Amino acid sequence: MTGFDYIRDGAGIYEKSFAIIRAEADLSGFTASDAPIAVRIIHASGMVEIAQRIRFGHGFGAAARAALKAGKPILCDSEMVAHGITRARLPADNAVICTLRNAATPARAREIGNTRSAAALDFWGEHLDGALVAIGNAPTALFHLLELIEAGAKPPAAVIGMPVGFVGAAESKDALAVFGRLPFAIVAGRQGGSAMAVATVNAVASDIE
Amino acid sequence: MTGFDYIRDGAGIYEKSFAIIRAEADLSGFTASDAPIAVRIIHASGMVEIAQRIRFGHGFGAAARAALKAGKPILCDSEMVAHGITRARLPADNAVICTLRNAATPARAREIGNTRSAAALDFWGEHLDGALVAIGNAPTALFHLLELIEAGAKPPAAVIGMPVGFVGAAESKDALAVFGRLPFAIVAGRQGGSAMAVATVNAVASDIE
Repeated sequence: MTGFDYIRDGAGIYEKSFAIIRAEADLSGFTASDAPIAVRIIHASGMVEIAQRIRFGHGFGAAARAALKAGKPILCDSEMVAHGITRARLPADNAVICTLRNAATPARAREIGNTRSAAALDFWGEHLDGALVAIGNAPTALFHLLELIEAGAKPPAAVIGMPVGFVGAAESKDALAVFGRLPFAIVAGRQGGSAMAVATVNAVASDIE
Repeated sequence: MTGFDYIRDGAGIYEKSFAIIRAEADLSGFTASDAPIAVRIIHASGMVEIAQRIRFGHGFGAAARAALKAGKPILCDSEMVAHGITRARLPADNAVICTLRNAATPARAREIGNTRSAAALDFWGEHLDGALVAIGNAPTALFHLLELIEAGAKPPAAVIGMPVGFVGAAESKDALAVFGRLPFAIVAGRQGGSAMAVATVNAVASDIE
C-alpha cells in the first residue's frame, strides 16, 4: 500500500523517543524527580541542547504535583497551552482555565495599558490561590503575574514560566527565577513556548511516561 | 505600582521583535515573498538560527495564499495548531478543521494500525482537495498524508510540514520535500512544532506584520 517505512505505534514512538533523549541529553544536573520533566520538555522542543536552559527552583516538581493532586486549577496564558494539556493525565479532573478570550479582556488591557495576554490574568481572581500557572506565550503575562503577587494576590503553588521570543521573554523568566518565593520551572533565554509549557504540565500531572 | 520595567504595548513588542529578527537572522536565502514567512517562524521559535532549517518548495507561499483567499479550509493535525491560528487574519473566514478528537478516530487508528494523529486524516475526506494542511505535531500524520495522496486522494494546495521530535520527524519532512508534487514549507530536522506551523499559517493568511 505504501512506500513509506515508519513506526506507526504511538506507544512505541514515545518509548523510542524517550530512550533517544536519555541517551543523548545531559541530564546530570537534574534530580531524579526533575529529570522526567526535563525529558518531556526536550521531547516537545526536539532539542537535547535545551537541557542546559531548563531550571527548576523552590521545589517546583513537588509543589506542582501536590497542587494538581489537590484538585487545583491550571491557569494558562494562551489557548494553545490550554488545548495542549492531556486531560486524561490530570489526577483530579482539574480545571484548565484561559481567560484570554474573555469578552472583557480587551477593555481591561486598555484600562491597565498592557497587552491582552497580561490583562487576561486580572480575571483569574481567586483561582490563582494555590494553582499551577502555565505561561507559554507572553512575557507580559509572566511580568504581570509577578506584579499581581507583589500587589498582594494570593500566590499560585508553582509557575511554569516559558514565554518565547525576542522582547522580554528572557527578562521575564529571569525575574521569575529571582522572585524568591515561587516554585518555578523556566527555560532561560529566548526559547520556550506553548509546547514546552504543556510538556511541563503533562509531566507533573502523571508519572506515566 | 511595580518594580518591573518592560514593554506593555502589543504592537510595539511585535515591531521590536521583527526588527531584532531582521537584524540578526540570515534571510538571504529567502525570496522577498518567503522572507516574511521565515520571520514569523523564527519569531515563534525564539531562534534566529532556525532560518537555516526552513525550506520552501514548489511555490509554497503563492499556493498557500491563493488557497486561503479562495476560501479553502485549513486542516490541522493537532488541537494546539487549530487553536493557535489567528482567526482575524484569515482572508475568507476559512474553516479550521482538526479531526483528532472525532469519536471514530481511535477505532480507525486500530483498524489501519497507525496512530490516532494519522488516522484522523482519514476523516478529512473531500476537505483535503485544495486545502492548506498544517502539521505541527505528528510525523505519522505527515507520512499518512503522503500515503493518502499516493493512493489517489485529491491533493491539498500546500502543506506545512513541521512535526517535531526524535522518531520520524526529520524523515517525514524529508519525504515531503522530495515528494515532488506538493508545495511545501518545512523545518528540516528534529525541530518544528505547533507554534511554528501556526506562525506559517498566520504569515500566509495576511500580509500585515
